[in-house]
Amino acid sequence: MQFIDLIRKKRYGSTLTGEEIQFFVDAVTHERVPDYQITALLMAIFLKGMNTEERSALTQSMVRSGDVLSLEHIPGPKIDKHSTGGVGDKVSLCLAPAVAACGVIVPMVSGRGLGHTGGTLDKLEAIPGMVTRLPTARLLQVVERCGLVFAGQSEDIAPADRKLYALRDVTATVESLSLITSSIMSKKLAEGLDGLVLDVKVGDGAFMKNENDARELANALVAVGSHCGLGVTALLTDMNQPLGLAIGNANEMAEAIEILQGGGPADLKEITVRIGAEMLLLGNLATTLEEGVEKLESVIADGSALQRLQHVIENQDGDPGVCEDVSRFPQPAFTKEVVAQTSGIVNGFETERLGRIVVALGGGRLQATDDVDPAVGIQLGCKYGDSVTKGAVLATVLANDETRLEEAVSAVKESISLGSDRQAAPPLFIAAIRTAPMDRRQTV
Amino acid sequence: MQFIDLIRKKRYGSTLTGEEIQFFVDAVTHERVPDYQITALLMAIFLKGMNTEERSALTQSMVRSGDVLSLEHIPGPKIDKHSTGGVGDKVSLCLAPAVAACGVIVPMVSGRGLGHTGGTLDKLEAIPGMVTRLPTARLLQVVERCGLVFAGQSEDIAPADRKLYALRDVTATVESLSLITSSIMSKKLAEGLDGLVLDVKVGDGAFMKNENDARELANALVAVGSHCGLGVTALLTDMNQPLGLAIGNANEMAEAIEILQGGGPADLKEITVRIGAEMLLLGNLATTLEEGVEKLESVIADGSALQRLQHVIENQDGDPGVCEDVSRFPQPAFTKEVVAQTSGIVNGFETERLGRIVVALGGGRLQATDDVDPAVGIQLGCKYGDSVTKGAVLATVLANDETRLEEAVSAVKESISLGSDRQAAPPLFIAAIRTAPMDRRQTV
Repeated sequence: MQFIDLIRKKRYGSTLTGEEIQFFVDAVTHERVPDYQITALLMAIFLKGMNTEERSALTQSMVRSGDVLSLEHIPGPKIDKHSTGGVGDKVSLCLAPAVAACGVIVPMVSGRGLGHTGGTLDKLEAIPGMVTRLPTARLLQVVERCGLVFAGQSEDIAPADRKLYALRDVTATVESLSLITSSIMSKKLAEGLDGLVLDVKVGDGAFMKNENDARELANALVAVGSHCGLGVTALLTDMNQPLGLAIGNANEMAEAIEILQGGGPADLKEITVRIGAEMLLLGNLATTLEEGVEKLESVIADGSALQRLQHVIENQDGDPGVCEDVSRFPQPAFTKEVVAQTSGIVNGFETERLGRIVVALGGGRLQATDDVDPAVGIQLGCKYGDSVTKGAVLATVLANDETRLEEAVSAVKESISLGSDRQAAPPLFIAAIRTAPMDRRQTV
Repeated sequence: MQFIDLIRKKRYGSTLTGEEIQFFVDAVTHERVPDYQITALLMAIFLKGMNTEERSALTQSMVRSGDVLSLEHIPGPKIDKHSTGGVGDKVSLCLAPAVAACGVIVPMVSGRGLGHTGGTLDKLEAIPGMVTRLPTARLLQVVERCGLVFAGQSEDIAPADRKLYALRDVTATVESLSLITSSIMSKKLAEGLDGLVLDVKVGDGAFMKNENDARELANALVAVGSHCGLGVTALLTDMNQPLGLAIGNANEMAEAIEILQGGGPADLKEITVRIGAEMLLLGNLATTLEEGVEKLESVIADGSALQRLQHVIENQDGDPGVCEDVSRFPQPAFTKEVVAQTSGIVNGFETERLGRIVVALGGGRLQATDDVDPAVGIQLGCKYGDSVTKGAVLATVLANDETRLEEAVSAVKESISLGSDRQAAPPLFIAAIRTAPMDRRQTV
């Protein structure tokens, strides 16, 4: 088999066989093919697409390119959650301890932020001392002790995906449905999961700007998961306004703690318990969504979810004191409020732009090698549909640099719009797509 | 401007501006961009195409990436000919001296063979001592003295094209109409030409297997040439049987000499004078095709075309004695005849296969770094439509290795088919496509 023949075949739009895809992934993994041939194939895949069989073969070949977590010895269903990324999306941080407190095993392997959306690992690392780069033995130990772990993707998990992603990133081939699907699912399958809940974000602050694209991605993920024997539920959720009020790292971590303390913004709470309930359903720890929601509310109310977070932070060398005192997080040198110039009703956020403002403040990355400043960010003072009076605080900008502070303040001002009519906020939950129950029973 | 933005733009199928294309070519020329980004863009161009403006901009940017021959000081129209490549296509070898003898200046810059078609340089280098790698000063000197030169593409001519071609070759992006057109035209424009005749081959032995594809290429080349201010005539000619009788290197060179001696196969003679006449027309050295044909026949008949060949060979350190005694060419160690198993009428050649048999004999290249054996090849004993009796010699295989000889003999046997009915041979000339006369007048 010659690599150029695969390129030519996909260039014609033909379907690659499982053997051909395995050959491709092996060649990438073992660096038997130059990058310039890989990127030509990636662009051909981007423009000609792959069917579900090809995507599943690519997913499974990428899983086989590295280690697979072995969690069979730990009792309980292994269920993870993955978000396609949004602004202010700190759901994982409160969700994982809560579902773990309900009996789900959550080997949560997350990524770092790049572009306008934040990364779970960056937010976690706002906790003083917190270590997310864990060798496999240590990672397993944390799961055994806590029922969950927050870890970065090890170099040994789906190395082919890591290599391919790096090349996609510099060749405008990231946004391929086939490649996105295989990339997400390979990393998740390598966690040794029984089930997965996908939070597919839709709207201005998401990668998918419209519902059709998001639905297509959700269907693709569910199809590949099902094809690979994994129980998958995909939720389409709104990202036309930031989730919760915090955008940044330390402040998002603090907001997640607030949820586990029983407070926090309503939308963040709602999405946390809903996704958690879906995870309990997939893990057969609840028979209805309602039952799942109740269980989650109960572990939040009795403090066991927060305890679980403290426990995992402790086990990952972090300062568990942040769970009681969020002032222990790194604090910004400067803060400045953005106030309403008129009275009115909040009727729009430029959500992606808000994410980019945080990146510009130093709270995210333009390049993978950039450092992230945990203290900076935006703290919103309003949500969609809120009535505000002139002079009300719409947002507070957190910065470590006065020039950037001022730039951010004027940009935030432009990113929140007020109107005179009350309009319904976009609904938080748009759709749920599930593996067929029969399939699920077989695979979970 | 960021290179990745160009990739994304073309990925969407948008039109690149002249500035963007110049940025692309500059980045390639000065190695400011990694190969893996270039190949992603090449695949996007392959699959999304380029319009005539983009192709012309790419052509001109590639011309500017290197040196342009300056021939203004030499009196006479500067006209070259380019073939898209065929089996047994040695037209350039007899054509260039003949049109030079008629007053055309022919700075013939040619390539080497790769794949099933031979290369003009390889055939020329069958002449003992012949040097085709000429520094620009020397190349100009030969043109000044002889009115023509046979040279390889210098490293300094369209270096961006060289780099891009090398990447296309390993990423299945060679066969892009946009990229082929720009590649051909950039090298020709860098010769400082007034006009160009393109011989676009159609049929089993050509890169273009069907007339529509060939016509599309011819139209594209004429459009870009015209857009860049060059007078261009494209002829579509048949490549369903080898041109002439010789396929190889030394034997093709010998057959070209035969033409200039007044003999040689009818089809080779016919195409040589026709293309030559088109060149005279473009150079305003003839007012009708008929007048052009007469002039060419006259320089062949009076020996001045052959003298011109001797002269250029001498000036390029070759042995001009080959023009009188073709036994001075390297000779094969083994020859074996392929004889007709039955009587019949020759009704088909697997032309591409015949080309590949010569490559397998060592007379061509599978890889650019392969050496070429000048002595090996196939000498046909028949043309399409010939009646042959059982035992007649259909071809003679020339080899330097007995195993390869036997393999070639059985393959050649399978590549020539005999039937019982006489069928018309495919017409040699299929179509001529010209720059509109008004355009031509402006540009030549």
